Amino acid sequence: MDSNNSNEAPAQTLRLRWIGIDTYRENVAYLHRDCALYRAEGFQALAKVEVRGNGQRILASLNVVDDSSIVEGDQLGLSEDAFAQLGLQEGFAVSVSQAEPASSIPALHRKIAGERLTRDDFRRIVQDIAEHRYSKIELTAFVVACNQGELDREEVFYLSDAMSRVGRRLDWQEHPVVDKHCIGGIPGNRTSMLVVPIVAAHGMLCPKTSSRAITSPAGTADTMEVLANVELPFDDLNALVRTHRGCLAWGGTSDLSPADDVLIAVERPLSIDSPGQMVASILSKKVAAGSTHLLLDIPVGPHAKVRSMPEARRLRKLFEYVAGCMGLVIEVVVTDGRQPIGRGIGPVLEARDVMRVLQNHPEAPMDLRQKSLRLAGRMLEFDPDVRGGDGFAIARDILDSGRALEKMQAIIQAQGGKPFDPENPPLAPHSFDVLAPEDGVVLGIDNLKLARIARVAGAPKAAGAGVDMLARIGDTVSAGQPLYRVYAAYRSEQNFARQASERHSGFTLGGAEQLQTLNVEF
Amino acid sequence: MDSNNSNEAPAQTLRLRWIGIDTYRENVAYLHRDCALYRAEGFQALAKVEVRGNGQRILASLNVVDDSSIVEGDQLGLSEDAFAQLGLQEGFAVSVSQAEPASSIPALHRKIAGERLTRDDFRRIVQDIAEHRYSKIELTAFVVACNQGELDREEVFYLSDAMSRVGRRLDWQEHPVVDKHCIGGIPGNRTSMLVVPIVAAHGMLCPKTSSRAITSPAGTADTMEVLANVELPFDDLNALVRTHRGCLAWGGTSDLSPADDVLIAVERPLSIDSPGQMVASILSKKVAAGSTHLLLDIPVGPHAKVRSMPEARRLRKLFEYVAGCMGLVIEVVVTDGRQPIGRGIGPVLEARDVMRVLQNHPEAPMDLRQKSLRLAGRMLEFDPDVRGGDGFAIARDILDSGRALEKMQAIIQAQGGKPFDPENPPLAPHSFDVLAPEDGVVLGIDNLKLARIARVAGAPKAAGAGVDMLARIGDTVSAGQPLYRVYAAYRSEQNFARQASERHSGFTLGGAEQLQTLNVEF
Repeated sequence: MDSNNSNEAPAQTLRLRWIGIDTYRENVAYLHRDCALYRAEGFQALAKVEVRGNGQRILASLNVVDDSSIVEGDQLGLSEDAFAQLGLQEGFAVSVSQAEPASSIPALHRKIAGERLTRDDFRRIVQDIAEHRYSKIELTAFVVACNQGELDREEVFYLSDAMSRVGRRLDWQEHPVVDKHCIGGIPGNRTSMLVVPIVAAHGMLCPKTSSRAITSPAGTADTMEVLANVELPFDDLNALVRTHRGCLAWGGTSDLSPADDVLIAVERPLSIDSPGQMVASILSKKVAAGSTHLLLDIPVGPHAKVRSMPEARRLRKLFEYVAGCMGLVIEVVVTDGRQPIGRGIGPVLEARDVMRVLQNHPEAPMDLRQKSLRLAGRMLEFDPDVRGGDGFAIARDILDSGRALEKMQAIIQAQGGKPFDPENPPLAPHSFDVLAPEDGVVLGIDNLKLARIARVAGAPKAAGAGVDMLARIGDTVSAGQPLYRVYAAYRSEQNFARQASERHSGFTLGGAEQLQTLNVEF
Repeated sequence: MDSNNSNEAPAQTLRLRWIGIDTYRENVAYLHRDCALYRAEGFQALAKVEVRGNGQRILASLNVVDDSSIVEGDQLGLSEDAFAQLGLQEGFAVSVSQAEPASSIPALHRKIAGERLTRDDFRRIVQDIAEHRYSKIELTAFVVACNQGELDREEVFYLSDAMSRVGRRLDWQEHPVVDKHCIGGIPGNRTSMLVVPIVAAHGMLCPKTSSRAITSPAGTADTMEVLANVELPFDDLNALVRTHRGCLAWGGTSDLSPADDVLIAVERPLSIDSPGQMVASILSKKVAAGSTHLLLDIPVGPHAKVRSMPEARRLRKLFEYVAGCMGLVIEVVVTDGRQPIGRGIGPVLEARDVMRVLQNHPEAPMDLRQKSLRLAGRMLEFDPDVRGGDGFAIARDILDSGRALEKMQAIIQAQGGKPFDPENPPLAPHSFDVLAPEDGVVLGIDNLKLARIARVAGAPKAAGAGVDMLARIGDTVSAGQPLYRVYAAYRSEQNFARQASERHSGFTLGGAEQLQTLNVEF
């Protein structure tokens, strides 16, 4: 038994060290096994620790290190993301302690047990997620528990609302603020790059933020990056939107609905995209971005995210219900998702298609033009001064007159335009054609297989890589006629893509009588 | 368009490098961002890669590195576990490629969607898990999906059976092979260290493997380690059991039900311990270890894992059903789990209690003695030559006569005995007493709080740390009388433990009339 005086406690600060490891959205802290603080605190493996220094604070998972050349006993290492987040220089004195467990963990356990959560539960969970208080394991548990138990529509609203309230929230001080969104899954579907200039040319405020490709060969941000800079400081973006009424920038840096970005890190590897999570992810971002009106595109097809009309209808009603609760005006359109939209798949090829449509070029892909006009028309009808049914004609006039091209050029200029000639796009050097094995009619095109071939060929990392479609559903082809051309950046990727296309070209041929039609809303 | 000759492909092998980072049961591979192979293969962040060399093969998650002092462009780094698993020396030529996705992933997705899985689904999932084909995210998804949807009892059988069939499976070539197991949660509950010598002294084969503490202040393996070596090579253990009829060793190295060890890595941080997973974990290990008969202890109490008799009954029926399907004879006993068993909590303190019971020492804790005799008695009745009801008296005779002590000493000796004097146990140096704040009767003791205080004091890492109980439920205490004494290895841990005990001592005092009784099976 002894009294309680002590200078025996281990040193409370460590020197910060940058560890050049990319741990992909998970903060990792590295402590040497002999570190006095590690020994005294009795941290468990993978414990969440709180790192503090100079008034900054981050949470990280702990990895124990046995090699002093990585971290020494008096150092604290942080992985690249974590180091950037803390924002201090190497050698800075930092302290580290066991992180308080996230206070929403009991609610997480109730969800794992299949219970319905309250609005307050969702608020606290989303707050903890946005503050990186959840480990990857806890995040996965939340995502799976919400997916399996199927959130009811009130819970989807609670989740969406909570996500929209954490992080930055924009207020444009005018009305309407319009946006469009597609739930994704259709290669080449670059309608945003046509809809935004048309709607902005009409004068409506359309501060569109776009995403980069996650599992697809190109996102709108990747394609726009061929033409201009998409990573703009928040204040520049703001000013640009006010001047030009629209933008085509990447949304990842603006801190809108940050919990969504954290959740994606586990949803993506699990390929989980449940209706509730999709609605929460999309609507929370739009509301946080200050949108008042949203046009939502749900493509339906055998290889699209939504595979049947009844499924599309259920999803539409969920979007409508939750948007209504959040005070967001929404129009949902169900579109033909049986095949890629436009000709190109991959950033450069898609940028070529978009510019050709804007230029009213004779080789502009008509399907991309028509779909964009219809979406833009519906958005124009958000304007109280536009009569119902007049939107399409107004959109077509804006496009045909060159005003959309002019607006796009202004936006590109404002976002730091890059030289690009759609007649001579910088395509990847290694190409090959995939040929029809027999005479027939194109009955089906597998979006997923073509997207995969484009990715294997290098898209979107290699912007000039991808697939250029040379036939569409309903076309009659002869044996040996090219169905599509693949562009790859490296010889090895060309080989991988060739192997993938040899396993399955993605095209189904057959007799004309087998051709099926799809009844979608337009 | 060009032809397909090429020596352009990147080098196919890399030099192996040990990376001194303990990634806790997850294999991690480190590749430099400039590595030609990384660039050519287009690995995604956190992709699963397959590393091969010299006929060996392991799977690992990829971390990308930007610091050549960690790995260079022509090296492949492996975290400590992964390096040990591959078993090659640094500098060895290894190749790396995208791992084939686990073939059971579609079944995982069906489980996430709430479907019932088949026997074959579980076999393939468990196989992939044991081969480390699942990422931590996929593992978590499986655990949560099984937990939330509540496996039906057939599915629990499929899972248990699949787990028992992957990895090593022992056959002792005799009958019966007996074992005992407690579902856990009660501090100090070291009955195995008494039951095994009693049953082995009777001559029954009892190859008990024990676990280390996961969230408790001591597991049987931690306590036995105070007295002897618990990490024995498999063949030595085998010979030892045949000679002495029993052992008290750690089960972690014997490769029995390896999928269980992988699953624990996510169940533990989530504190998930659903009935189905508990049954599968326990029964798969026992069947793989060659047991034919199992005595299972389910303690019930307000701070135990099982909190009510109806809950205990449901769990018992599930254990009985699944054990029956697996051909394992099981006896389930429900015991009093309202407070710790024995006096000490922590490896050295618990070893002291066990040795005192074996020595028939006047200060031996009677509750530990009585419970052990009852459990041993039930196990002895697995012997066809023992009449029902006679087990307890036989067990008591074996203990009182000193034959149990003799057997324990032989086992300790065979496991490489360490010097230990129960009259003078090597306790941690910094201690303090927690006192009764008022006169009263002990109405309740919170197992979880006391376990936490013992852990904060340093147990089980510091074997001599822990809590020594000085009062039990039903005792009358006066204000200022010690309720328990805490031993800590370091001054800082003493302070943490004191703070924890000041927040809540874990004891509830009150009037004698408030004392409640618990009706358990014995």
